[in-house]
Amino acid sequence: MNTPDPTDAEPQPAATPAMRTRPLVESPALAAKAVQFLSEGPSGFRMSQDEAQRVVAYMRWVSYAPQSFLYREGDSTRTSYMLMVLEGDVSVDTAASGRADRVAISVLGPGALIGEMALLDGAPRSTSCTAITPVQAAGMSQGGLAALADEHPAVAFKLMTFMARSTANRLRALGEQLHMYDQVIADLHQEIDQLRAAKEGRY
Amino acid sequence: MNTPDPTDAEPQPAATPAMRTRPLVESPALAAKAVQFLSEGPSGFRMSQDEAQRVVAYMRWVSYAPQSFLYREGDSTRTSYMLMVLEGDVSVDTAASGRADRVAISVLGPGALIGEMALLDGAPRSTSCTAITPVQAAGMSQGGLAALADEHPAVAFKLMTFMARSTANRLRALGEQLHMYDQVIADLHQEIDQLRAAKEGRY
Repeated sequence: MNTPDPTDAEPQPAATPAMRTRPLVESPALAAKAVQFLSEGPSGFRMSQDEAQRVVAYMRWVSYAPQSFLYREGDSTRTSYMLMVLEGDVSVDTAASGRADRVAISVLGPGALIGEMALLDGAPRSTSCTAITPVQAAGMSQGGLAALADEHPAVAFKLMTFMARSTANRLRALGEQLHMYDQVIADLHQEIDQLRAAKEGRY
Repeated sequence: MNTPDPTDAEPQPAATPAMRTRPLVESPALAAKAVQFLSEGPSGFRMSQDEAQRVVAYMRWVSYAPQSFLYREGDSTRTSYMLMVLEGDVSVDTAASGRADRVAISVLGPGALIGEMALLDGAPRSTSCTAITPVQAAGMSQGGLAALADEHPAVAFKLMTFMARSTANRLRALGEQLHMYDQVIADLHQEIDQLRAAKEGRY
């Protein structure tokens, strides 16, 4: 029989988080880290420790083995939760046009928020995220966020501000990267002009 | 006297919005537009019409003449409010490294949110925004947002979700632009390789 086994097509991600999550408060050490990360940051709409503890009560504890996927680019099914890295490092990469390999975008460590964009708009994951080391993370589902908004709207406002800031920071970083690319393209055009001039003029 | 007039250095922006704002509800037609834009969008944490009307009560009505600045790149003083375009078009541009002229990023029309990132993190404006046509906009200050969060936290949560979504949309668009630049750079490298091979091989 030549029917290919569809599961052979590519490596399968680790079991979905839903299969192995527990309330984050079951690990007081990890819950304390989540409180710390949530209550850090610039002033203004910053969360207090009390508010952060309220958020943590709605979070799930998720573990990832090294090399397992937290998210896969293009995945439109697992868009209903975001993760905050509590321990370990996560590689963020994307498929590059015209290349077989993938392009590393960044490495995210403790305190980083991952997947909040897909949670906001339900669009497919725009990057893949892979655990480099064992990773402990705090998950917040769309349902959890809706419950928090119902029960503690002022805290939900602070959490959403935290999420919006995280996205804004990434937007600023990407804007700077685009500036850099712009310069690279200008330099390459100049090199091409010089090569052409040499070809026409000297020979 | 040779002392240069500092106001001659470059065109001055129009009077700061603080000088000419009124409560948005003074224009029922513009207030209705703001309600419409706020309550549109994908489902999930979408605002109801009632909630949007609560937000509008905290907004100011700001007018810009053609060619006047809504924001100027690098400005670190006017970061305490955001604007929603209600009528007219706004050009967004940025200084390009290695060039005298400015690079147009996009044109934003009615419904677009401008300046919510600086409102979130207080960082300097990352782009300049100029009115192309007469522009009517709804302004929300940091103080207004804080008051809304105090008085109607559930509505403030929805507004912050709207802001986070706007930022996430822009992040996705910029990510696609970066993919495109990546391809352009790969093509230019290929052209350089061919020009070098031609130079060495044929002559």
